Amino acid sequence: MKLIDGRAAAADIMSEVSAAAAELRAAGTDPTLAIVVPTRDEATAWYVRSIERAAAKAGVTSRVEHLADPGAEDVTGLLRKLSADPSVHGIICQTPLPDGVSLEEVAAHIDTRKDVDGAGPTSLGRLAAGLPTFAPATAAAVLELLHREQVELAGARAVVVGRSTVVGKPAALLLLNEHATVTVCHSRTSELAEECAEADILVVAVGRPGFIGAEHIKPGAIVIDVGTNPTDDGGLVGDVDPAGARSRAGAYTPVPGGVGPVTTALLLRHTVTAARG
Amino acid sequence: MKLIDGRAAAADIMSEVSAAAAELRAAGTDPTLAIVVPTRDEATAWYVRSIERAAAKAGVTSRVEHLADPGAEDVTGLLRKLSADPSVHGIICQTPLPDGVSLEEVAAHIDTRKDVDGAGPTSLGRLAAGLPTFAPATAAAVLELLHREQVELAGARAVVVGRSTVVGKPAALLLLNEHATVTVCHSRTSELAEECAEADILVVAVGRPGFIGAEHIKPGAIVIDVGTNPTDDGGLVGDVDPAGARSRAGAYTPVPGGVGPVTTALLLRHTVTAARG
Repeated sequence: MKLIDGRAAAADIMSEVSAAAAELRAAGTDPTLAIVVPTRDEATAWYVRSIERAAAKAGVTSRVEHLADPGAEDVTGLLRKLSADPSVHGIICQTPLPDGVSLEEVAAHIDTRKDVDGAGPTSLGRLAAGLPTFAPATAAAVLELLHREQVELAGARAVVVGRSTVVGKPAALLLLNEHATVTVCHSRTSELAEECAEADILVVAVGRPGFIGAEHIKPGAIVIDVGTNPTDDGGLVGDVDPAGARSRAGAYTPVPGGVGPVTTALLLRHTVTAARG
Repeated sequence: MKLIDGRAAAADIMSEVSAAAAELRAAGTDPTLAIVVPTRDEATAWYVRSIERAAAKAGVTSRVEHLADPGAEDVTGLLRKLSADPSVHGIICQTPLPDGVSLEEVAAHIDTRKDVDGAGPTSLGRLAAGLPTFAPATAAAVLELLHREQVELAGARAVVVGRSTVVGKPAALLLLNEHATVTVCHSRTSELAEECAEADILVVAVGRPGFIGAEHIKPGAIVIDVGTNPTDDGGLVGDVDPAGARSRAGAYTPVPGGVGPVTTALLLRHTVTAARG
């Protein structure tokens, strides 16, 4: 069993991003990512700081826009303002959002060319239609890791567990665009272990610690664990039981150190791509 | 084996649409569908006439806009003009299109609220995100027929053969939104018959006459045949071999008389819905 090293992948992407950011600066463009934070949530603040640190390292300017107890229109108004601001190249909006609005609705107000986390419906639809666009960074990270491992996707049987708009659905659509036969499973799937155990590629994004065990894994399968579940002692665990993965998978992404660091690096890659125009 | 009667379903939808159209007229609104025809293709002309006839029957005004040998910008310009025209409520654009442009790109210029055939990327993304929108009429027809047959979708195993942006992908996303476990198969799928033979619900949209036979069908499965392949004698055949379906399926949609008439009826239902605003 091979552990897939997300930190090494992220480091490679980060040096590529640094070079691109330096080139942009030399040409007079300061690549800038705006991060809208409509919440005082502590986990969100922690994540935002990690993006800021990575951006600083890569030479990408991050601009954090806090909104204290906003209404939906405060958020959408700010997203429209940033979309119109030529000094901003990428825009992401954190959750939780004000009651009664979804990220997809809010993100519809981000200019698609600046929607570097592929959060808006137009980005998702362009992805589904196979048109050029930014995919959600987490879903893009899944594909990035599969590409780096040189996994043959065409004709492979891929199972995605989880159907969220930010991970499961876009990951499934990206796998489909690369000619995998794709099954999407979720909480209502009747025989989950049987479905998963037929997967050459198993992508898990459900947000339940250790939800997937050895019985879900086909011997030799590539397992991509998108889960990031906080533990009581301040750590992180994935959706896949590590012992189960170790006993059955051909290769798998640990948590932490798998999909997570690649996601942040891709967010920055998307930002410099957007800045290049 | 039950033959699913698409003509009866269409007739029901058409009377509902007629009533809605009459109500709209009584309130001073003339529900209007604009049909952009950027081609002299005879099959397209035939299909456009069938929509015009159905619209007339339902009391929906159809406005056919022919473009002779247009460039991409002639088409997108017209779509933008119709999008801005308050007397037009629904807009569809026929294919084939000028060389080098896809329907998805062109349809991005249709106002999403008037995109009654769900052809634009924003419509597709809203559908994927579970937001209110018009689904492509053919994909919506698949779900309409399953609903009318009272097929339990939650937890069912659905296999969609074909991954086009107009049928396969949106049908898969609609089935997923209704809690089916969904597999999308296509030309690169390695063991198609085995995949299909596990489906409680089999949706076929590949455009190859008789492509699916008895060996692809689980005994008792519901088979929805979206194929409409012209025959030499001027008829139509589906993608499913009728003898194969008869010998194995629990219920299936014939061609002609299955998905086709429901598609046209739903296009008109979408138009009156758009006219209601």
